[in-house]
Amino acid sequence: MGFSTDNPKGFVLALLSSGFIGASFIIKKKGLRRAAAASGIRAGVGGYSYLLEPLWWAGMITMIVGEVANFIAYAFAPAVLVTPLGALSIIVSAVLAHFILKEKLHSLGILGCVMCIAGSVVIVIHAPQEKEISSVQEIWKLAMQTAFLLYVASVIVLVLVLIFHFAPRFGHTNVLIYTGICSLMGSLSVMSVKALGTSLKLTFEGMNQLIYPETWFFMLVVLTCVITQMNYLNKALDTFNTAIVSPIYYVMFTTLTILASVIMFKDWDGQSMASIISEICGFIVVLSGTILLHVTKDYDRNSSRSMHASLSPNLTARLCSGNGELPKDVDEETGSSEDICLRRQELY
Amino acid sequence: MGFSTDNPKGFVLALLSSGFIGASFIIKKKGLRRAAAASGIRAGVGGYSYLLEPLWWAGMITMIVGEVANFIAYAFAPAVLVTPLGALSIIVSAVLAHFILKEKLHSLGILGCVMCIAGSVVIVIHAPQEKEISSVQEIWKLAMQTAFLLYVASVIVLVLVLIFHFAPRFGHTNVLIYTGICSLMGSLSVMSVKALGTSLKLTFEGMNQLIYPETWFFMLVVLTCVITQMNYLNKALDTFNTAIVSPIYYVMFTTLTILASVIMFKDWDGQSMASIISEICGFIVVLSGTILLHVTKDYDRNSSRSMHASLSPNLTARLCSGNGELPKDVDEETGSSEDICLRRQELY
Repeated sequence: MGFSTDNPKGFVLALLSSGFIGASFIIKKKGLRRAAAASGIRAGVGGYSYLLEPLWWAGMITMIVGEVANFIAYAFAPAVLVTPLGALSIIVSAVLAHFILKEKLHSLGILGCVMCIAGSVVIVIHAPQEKEISSVQEIWKLAMQTAFLLYVASVIVLVLVLIFHFAPRFGHTNVLIYTGICSLMGSLSVMSVKALGTSLKLTFEGMNQLIYPETWFFMLVVLTCVITQMNYLNKALDTFNTAIVSPIYYVMFTTLTILASVIMFKDWDGQSMASIISEICGFIVVLSGTILLHVTKDYDRNSSRSMHASLSPNLTARLCSGNGELPKDVDEETGSSEDICLRRQELY
Repeated sequence: MGFSTDNPKGFVLALLSSGFIGASFIIKKKGLRRAAAASGIRAGVGGYSYLLEPLWWAGMITMIVGEVANFIAYAFAPAVLVTPLGALSIIVSAVLAHFILKEKLHSLGILGCVMCIAGSVVIVIHAPQEKEISSVQEIWKLAMQTAFLLYVASVIVLVLVLIFHFAPRFGHTNVLIYTGICSLMGSLSVMSVKALGTSLKLTFEGMNQLIYPETWFFMLVVLTCVITQMNYLNKALDTFNTAIVSPIYYVMFTTLTILASVIMFKDWDGQSMASIISEICGFIVVLSGTILLHVTKDYDRNSSRSMHASLSPNLTARLCSGNGELPKDVDEETGSSEDICLRRQELY
């Protein structure tokens, strides 16, 4: 067990972040409903009346607060701890939707929540300590390790192959192309967000890091990665059902981020085998819980149909047969595609 | 981490036991099918031709071997370790049913298997060491602790109230009555099985324990508890659907057994808070996985109907409306009710 002085801060920030982001979905949706009731035009069919609805803006601000808390959390605790805790935002929004929006939570969804919590507890108990870092050059050195450079190089090659070879051919039929690009870029986003966050933390503590070019380089990387990621996430959500994109994306993105963090920040150095295995199991449990929550989300609306659409082994084959066949509840859930690209679990 | 010399033996025995018991279901079912094909009469409708089928007997022997391994496992490792590993037999039988009997395993069922494994790994990593015990009198002393005597007394009172007050009135409408009796008795069964197993282990090691009356007393307790348990389990399975009885029973029984073991054998003494919390989380994960596997088992046969029947919040109300409404696949699954009462996760 044992925490450094920073880990608890990062942990609390990650929890707050999940709370804010989870709540923001509900507040925004309540705002969208109210706007639709007032104007008679829903956001999904092109209305913009929600921009006049204070509740929608309250939700937007809640989300931004959550994102900022998440960003700061990465400066205080290892990504291995912060990233999986993001799953808790899904629980918060599922529970609030049940009580405030009166959306029925499926019994298996409750099981998914229980699992996410149990898995998170195991991860938190065994999380490694955040390494002491005193300058951006130290992070730069970590990023320049051969192993991490190899990881970055493979990510870039894979992303380029996916973008230029696979996306034009299979992008519209295979859900793994766009989500793959997002997840690969996402792992680099988080690493650069962590580097930038740590630099800013040091700057605020009185050790100005803005004088070093490395800080600005990391900022550039953050922007590039996040923009690429959002661009392809939008494409994925425009092409496929959220209920399919979200769990696949969450699993791939979280796994790759943890892999990147373990390579770059050597999170597992000095940890016992038992702790590492416990963390991996906790992580698998959180992933399973998330999948279960997502898959069962639409059970009551269109029971066996979405179940098969979401986790069928021949997913691709089914998707080939055309998107129209699948329920597309994008607008129902977040109101507009601008909202969606700001949704947290899809950003990082 | 750290294992005593005995823990690994208990662990391997528990694994073997789950393998044998899981496989035995499949072998028996194959035997039943072959017998039905040969005679034209199914066991479910009163045929006994399966008694002439060698495959059925092979399954029966496999099951007995598994039960014996399980019994011995309790003599070597704490119940906190052995009991939850019983869930693995469900995985073994689900996987074998998929490949050998060609029964389709639902995608959520696979998720349930993954969870059972992840949870078991966490439990195994953090399991407490088996305490050194050198005579049956030592176990007797443990059983005579005030805390454990209080536990036994409350169990007996509860069981008597359930049998004489609730069972005649609500036994046929509320699934919790019969399964509650089984689970309460089950926790005492396991404790006495462990006491008896340890005595026999010591006897085989050269320290004859059969000369002490305590050994014989424990044997008497084992017999009483197991017979009561089997009797009410049969009633539960005769009255309600297996898909409802199994998960409820598994959860209650395992929880009570761990509680009893923690009180009697002080399994958690000297363990760190982190280990205890990890164990509890691992246990919750195994339970969730088991529930998921059971609930989704019948999804493909009669999808949304069994889903609601199995985990509905107003279960009792639904059951009140008559058993005929629910699919009763008892004979389909194990061939006859004699088989069922020998099924492992229902025995202990």
